[in-house]
Amino acid sequence: MTRVRARMEELGVDALLLSLGADLPWLTGYQAMPLERLTMLVLPVDHDATLVVPALEAPRVEEGDGLFVLRPWSETEDPVALVSRLVGGRRRLAVSDRTWATFVLELQARLPGGTWSPSSLVTSPLRAVKDGAEVAALRRASAAADRVAAQLVAGEVALVGRTEAEVSADLGRRLVAEGHQKVNFAIVGSGPNSASPHHEPGRRRIGPAEAVVCDFGGTLDGYCSDITRTAFTGEPPPQFRDLYGVLQAAQAAAVEAAQVGTPCEDVDGVARRVIEQGGYGPHFIHRTGHGIGLEEHEDPYLVAGNCEPLCAGHAFSVEPGIYLSNRWGARIEDIVLAGDEGPEPLNCVSHDLAIVETAASSS
Amino acid sequence: MTRVRARMEELGVDALLLSLGADLPWLTGYQAMPLERLTMLVLPVDHDATLVVPALEAPRVEEGDGLFVLRPWSETEDPVALVSRLVGGRRRLAVSDRTWATFVLELQARLPGGTWSPSSLVTSPLRAVKDGAEVAALRRASAAADRVAAQLVAGEVALVGRTEAEVSADLGRRLVAEGHQKVNFAIVGSGPNSASPHHEPGRRRIGPAEAVVCDFGGTLDGYCSDITRTAFTGEPPPQFRDLYGVLQAAQAAAVEAAQVGTPCEDVDGVARRVIEQGGYGPHFIHRTGHGIGLEEHEDPYLVAGNCEPLCAGHAFSVEPGIYLSNRWGARIEDIVLAGDEGPEPLNCVSHDLAIVETAASSS
Repeated sequence: MTRVRARMEELGVDALLLSLGADLPWLTGYQAMPLERLTMLVLPVDHDATLVVPALEAPRVEEGDGLFVLRPWSETEDPVALVSRLVGGRRRLAVSDRTWATFVLELQARLPGGTWSPSSLVTSPLRAVKDGAEVAALRRASAAADRVAAQLVAGEVALVGRTEAEVSADLGRRLVAEGHQKVNFAIVGSGPNSASPHHEPGRRRIGPAEAVVCDFGGTLDGYCSDITRTAFTGEPPPQFRDLYGVLQAAQAAAVEAAQVGTPCEDVDGVARRVIEQGGYGPHFIHRTGHGIGLEEHEDPYLVAGNCEPLCAGHAFSVEPGIYLSNRWGARIEDIVLAGDEGPEPLNCVSHDLAIVETAASSS
Repeated sequence: MTRVRARMEELGVDALLLSLGADLPWLTGYQAMPLERLTMLVLPVDHDATLVVPALEAPRVEEGDGLFVLRPWSETEDPVALVSRLVGGRRRLAVSDRTWATFVLELQARLPGGTWSPSSLVTSPLRAVKDGAEVAALRRASAAADRVAAQLVAGEVALVGRTEAEVSADLGRRLVAEGHQKVNFAIVGSGPNSASPHHEPGRRRIGPAEAVVCDFGGTLDGYCSDITRTAFTGEPPPQFRDLYGVLQAAQAAAVEAAQVGTPCEDVDGVARRVIEQGGYGPHFIHRTGHGIGLEEHEDPYLVAGNCEPLCAGHAFSVEPGIYLSNRWGARIEDIVLAGDEGPEPLNCVSHDLAIVETAASSS
């Protein structure tokens, strides 16, 4: 809270208005429900904070440490009017990035003199650098995801004959069994779908001799995991081995490049260069990585145009991919922690192409 | 799409900008991923629609029926600039209610002459009236939730000795087993927690002689279910029976009041009056209900101040509750469909207080 206020002063922000997103739980431990009843922390730079919360959700809030005053509103009150009164004459306002448009528009109408920024302007550089407890939580989450990935590459997760949706549900159950409280996603793209990076796992039944990209993560004690491994159901053809070899080299080079002080975009550039030199340049259609913490995707982003240097305590994914439309694709992803001793991957499962169910596919 | 354009003309909206929320899937069948890469349908009143989508998510989109042109953007493009160009000189803009604040603020900066409304202004009255296929989907979802509720009131879901979180997970598994693709929530509030309407199911172990409020729902073929039943683990004391009797009468009276043409707030008023007359007025701390469809909560809201009349095809919850702080509480909730033949509850499980595990509690 002290560091947030200091940054508000530095940036000339008069009040922070936090609703949906991770800024509120990061600051207070309380998470707003993603519903049409407004929850909003009003944090003026020069005054105590107030949490405006629907009366029926007030019993969920723990006021314990006096970080804020609780102001429950009843069903016939107008929460936007309440927030506006708490803002008072303050004009330079920062609202949390994921606040619903309806509330932003209502607040703007009620506070016509205000200038508006996203709260990430204030919080993002603070949130991006993880402290000891946060690093420990990320380690636990990554280790739990690793145990599921180890089962996958060892062939313990049946693939051939099952639908993508079934495998996705199986991976989700394993994430929970290994300690996650919540499954955030479990992408399973098989055969031609492996070339669709954000494929929605569907009714397609996985066959022999197919690439299967599995990208999954969940939340454990508030912090996120995220890992991708690619399996091949049977003996991979030489063309796929070639593609995968280039990808594996690109991923390793990008991790090695993720040194403290290196601009984020340079890490992306390293992965991209290896893939270009391997002849797959146009088939790497997304950035190399994203920060991770309370949210699956947060600062810092490893993408062209982001010249911010990596700092010790930054945690992010390194996940290049190569996708040949309608044919096949592959991706390798680890979470990496930048530190003064160099980049440290928090995921440790082998990057070698997982060749699974050769028996099934040859039978 | 035709009805949407007609309403845009009527309201003087030049372009609709749809990102997160149910308006986009309602119109196009495609749902934006809730991520930091912008997905936005630009629908000018006088021109074809364009779906701006991250390149890596483009393979998820089915363009089939020509509702829109697809415009994938690559990682180094600026999607807000892209949307702004598609908006062109149009000034009266409506943006989907749940669009993230970051994108609203960026769009406002890029389109300084614009006036902004939430897209619900255009879509909400259209979405609130369900057509035949939507009613059929809501029936299927409600029937699936009913089967879980029937198991609960029959005592087939073990309560005593388990934690609220365990029971919540159990209810979630049953929702999926009965046909839901997704669990949206499963509130389990036991003992004093039954007085917290939006209680987060936790580590509290359920004991004998306790009220247990279970409120759960999921998504089945795109449409939502939502049901609440209250169980008592053992023989309820007379005071709880009294409270529950008042609640049951209030819920039935509110359903009966939900006739086509009746203002929404009057349905709320009916439930409130019965509870007041029963002596529990101050303990009914939330509105009586909310519309339901593609979203768990949508128009029409049954709340004081909403004088819109109910129409045939409106689907909504009727869910009064009575909560005595730190002691106990109860809620009864059904989904109800307004129709020319009168209100039709889509949930059919008995409203009688479910007395479960009397043996366990007396042993």
